[in-house]
Amino acid sequence: MRPTQKSWLPEANTFHLPYGAFEVEDTQHLCVALGAHLLDLHAAADLLPPTLKAVCQAPVLNPLMSLGPKAWTLLRESLTRLLSANSPNRKKAEAALHSIAGATLVKPVLIPNYTDFYASIHHATRVGRLFRPNQPLLPNYKHVPIGYHGRASSIIPGGFPIIRPTGQTRPATEGAQPNFEPTKALDYELELALYIGQPNPLGTPIPIAKASQHIFGVSLLNDWSARDLQSWESQPLGPFLSKSFSTSVSPWITPMAALEPYMVPMHSRPKDDPKPLKYLASRTQIPNVNLEVSITTETMRANRLPPFSLSQSSLRDLYWSPAQLIAHHTSNGCNLQTGDMLATGTISGPADSSAGCLLELTRNGAEPIKLPTGEVRSFLSDGDEIILRAHAKAPGQPRLDLGECRAAILPARRWPTVSR
Amino acid sequence: MRPTQKSWLPEANTFHLPYGAFEVEDTQHLCVALGAHLLDLHAAADLLPPTLKAVCQAPVLNPLMSLGPKAWTLLRESLTRLLSANSPNRKKAEAALHSIAGATLVKPVLIPNYTDFYASIHHATRVGRLFRPNQPLLPNYKHVPIGYHGRASSIIPGGFPIIRPTGQTRPATEGAQPNFEPTKALDYELELALYIGQPNPLGTPIPIAKASQHIFGVSLLNDWSARDLQSWESQPLGPFLSKSFSTSVSPWITPMAALEPYMVPMHSRPKDDPKPLKYLASRTQIPNVNLEVSITTETMRANRLPPFSLSQSSLRDLYWSPAQLIAHHTSNGCNLQTGDMLATGTISGPADSSAGCLLELTRNGAEPIKLPTGEVRSFLSDGDEIILRAHAKAPGQPRLDLGECRAAILPARRWPTVSR
Repeated sequence: MRPTQKSWLPEANTFHLPYGAFEVEDTQHLCVALGAHLLDLHAAADLLPPTLKAVCQAPVLNPLMSLGPKAWTLLRESLTRLLSANSPNRKKAEAALHSIAGATLVKPVLIPNYTDFYASIHHATRVGRLFRPNQPLLPNYKHVPIGYHGRASSIIPGGFPIIRPTGQTRPATEGAQPNFEPTKALDYELELALYIGQPNPLGTPIPIAKASQHIFGVSLLNDWSARDLQSWESQPLGPFLSKSFSTSVSPWITPMAALEPYMVPMHSRPKDDPKPLKYLASRTQIPNVNLEVSITTETMRANRLPPFSLSQSSLRDLYWSPAQLIAHHTSNGCNLQTGDMLATGTISGPADSSAGCLLELTRNGAEPIKLPTGEVRSFLSDGDEIILRAHAKAPGQPRLDLGECRAAILPARRWPTVSR
Repeated sequence: MRPTQKSWLPEANTFHLPYGAFEVEDTQHLCVALGAHLLDLHAAADLLPPTLKAVCQAPVLNPLMSLGPKAWTLLRESLTRLLSANSPNRKKAEAALHSIAGATLVKPVLIPNYTDFYASIHHATRVGRLFRPNQPLLPNYKHVPIGYHGRASSIIPGGFPIIRPTGQTRPATEGAQPNFEPTKALDYELELALYIGQPNPLGTPIPIAKASQHIFGVSLLNDWSARDLQSWESQPLGPFLSKSFSTSVSPWITPMAALEPYMVPMHSRPKDDPKPLKYLASRTQIPNVNLEVSITTETMRANRLPPFSLSQSSLRDLYWSPAQLIAHHTSNGCNLQTGDMLATGTISGPADSSAGCLLELTRNGAEPIKLPTGEVRSFLSDGDEIILRAHAKAPGQPRLDLGECRAAILPARRWPTVSR
C-alpha cells in the first residue's frame, strides 16, 4: 500500500511506519517512528480501529504480532489515514507526537527464543579458510541452513553499552591451565533479525510457500562475539559464553509490509551448486537492503571525527533466504513462538571490503585495520563504538532507512564482581 | 527441616512436597504431590501465609521461584504444619486434595531459557570414542563446563508423546544430495534439569559460593536426539534441529530443600586431572541420586511385560557440579532468569551398563540391545516408550522419589503436513 497523498507531518511522507517502544513512567508504550518524531500508539489508540485498541495499548508488540498479516495491514492502513493530510483527527494525533530525541527507547518485543543462522556463504567461507585452509566450507553448508540456538535473555536494545566479557581462553601451551581473563578478541557481527508473528504448533512444520507470512518485521542485530573464548569452548557443542554476554538489536522494527516494494530476487546459486532439497525450494525473494558497519573510537570522538566505515554488504548476498530459514527451522516440528527472533548470521559479501566482522576483516587479527587517527584495531578496544546501519532501495521508491544499532564497549568488570 | 511428627495423610509422611501444576478448567493451579494425591495450592492459599497467597494462586511457579530461599522455606514450613497430624486446618486442607490419577499435569514453570550442559565425563568420553577414537576427550573438557543453548519452546511435560522428527541426513556418498526423511536414529538422553529461582542482572556473574542458592529445584529431563540429523548438521555450530523437536521434563519439581539431607560430596577428580580454575573451585556437593532408564515396546505392553531396564547411573558420577554450571554460565555476565532450566547433559557412569543414551549403549547402533521379547533396538522404534526414574538415598532418610519422565514415540508425520 502506497498512499497517494502526503502526510500533514512531512517527516511521515514515506509512511514506512517502523514500530518501537519507549519508556513512560513505570511502563512502556508502543509507537511508530515518523522521522525525528514518534507517535504514541497507546495515546492514539482511540483514533485507530476498536479491534486493535488492546494491542496498541499493550507494552510490547507481541499481541499485535500474534494476530497475523490482516491485522498488521489494518493497523498500517489506519495509521496512514490518520497521518494523511486530509485526516479529520490530525489535532488529536498531534497530541500523541513526541520527539524521539527526548524518549528512552526500549525493547518493543518480548523475545521468547533466539536462533542465529549462518546464512552468508561468504562469511562461512572466509571464516572457514582461517581455521581449515584445505576445506573452508564444510560439506553440509550448501544443503543445510546452519543455525544454532542463541541466548534470548541477554538481548538488549541498541544504545546500551556492552561490558567486555571475562572468560576462559586457550592455554598458551597444550596441557597448561587455560587463562580466565577479559576477552582480547572482542568482535561485532553485522546481522539482520527477523521477528516471528504468528506461531506454528509443535509438530507442524511451516511449508516454505507460507513461511514469509510468519515474518512480522526486521531489525538490525549485532551478535557480539569473544573470539578467543569461542575458539576454546566451541567443540563439540558450538558457541556458548562467547556469544551470550550480550546481543544488541536496533530499537525499531521495520514491518515486512514496508519492505514489500523493495523485494528483489536473491543472487542465484552458482550453476554447479546443488539444488536445495524440495522442502527448501522456492523463489528466493529478499528485500534489497544495503548494510554498513562503522566505528568510532574515543580518540576519534575527542577529535570530532565522523564514524569510519569498516565494511558495506548486501542482504542479497545471503545464500539462504528468510523463508528458507523458517521452513528449515520448523521442518523437524519445532514450534516458533510469537516474538521469536531469527538472525541471519554475519552478512558478508564476496569482496573483502564487504566482510561483516573483524574476524574476517583482520584475518583473525593478523592484518589489523588502520583508522584515520593512526590507531589500529585487530579487535575492539574499550571505548570503541560500533554502528550498524542499513537502508532499502528500489526504483521509484524513497530510500527506506532501517535505522541504526549502536553500542559502545565498556571495560571488563573486576572479578569477582560480587562479594562472597 | 525434618518434621518430628507425622501427617494426617500417611502418604505425606516424608514431607518431600514436590511442586507441580494441573489443569483446572481454562487455567492451571499449582499443587504439591502427596503420594497418590495432590494438594491444590490455589484452593489452600488461605491456609498459608498471606504474603504467599498471590504466588500460591499464580498459574506457574515463577513468582514463587523469584522470591528466593527464605520464601521457599516459609512455604514448605507452612505446608508441613498444615499437613501435620495436629493441624487445626486439616478439614479445610482435605477439601483441597485430589487424586493425581484423575488430574492432567501440566508444565508448572514458564521456562524462558534452556541450557544443556555436558557434565558427565563418562558420556563425553564414550561418545567421543565413537567419533574420535584417537582423542575421545577434547582438550577443553576438564577445564570448561561445556554447554550450549537449547530450545525452550519445545519443552513439554512427560506424558505427552514425541513425534518422530523428519530432517536432513548425510548423503550416502560424498557430494550426493542428502536425504530428507524421518530420523532412523532416534535416541533418548537421561538428564537432570535444574530450575533457576532468583535471577542475576546482566553483567553480574554469580560467584560459585552463592550459586546453589539460585537453584529452586530439579526435574528429570529427556533430551531426545536424532543422531543422524545431529551428525550431519552439527558442524560448525553445534546441535540444532536434531534436538529442538521436543524435550520432555518430568511434571514434578523436587525443591532443593527436600534434597538437602541427601547431599554428598561428588566423586573427586582423579589426582592427575587439572584443578578447576578459581572461579569454578568449590566443595562439590551433589544430591545422592540414582537414575534409571527403562523401555517398553508395543509388543512388551501387549504381552503385559514390565518395563525393561536399559541402564542405571548416579548423579555423583558427574564431572561438573550444579554450582559449577551456574558459576560458569554467568561468568561472562550472562543473566539467568527466573524459571530458566539448566540441564546436566546425559548422566552416564563409568560402567557400560550406566550409559545414559542408546548412542553409547549400542555404540552408535553397531551393537543392538536385545529385549526380553527377542526384539532388538539400535535406536528407538515407533511405539516405544522411555521411562526415566530417579530417587535420592541417604542413611536414616526415607527414599526420596523424583518421580518419572515418561513419553512414547509416535510415527513421523507425512510430509508436507500442511497444505500449501
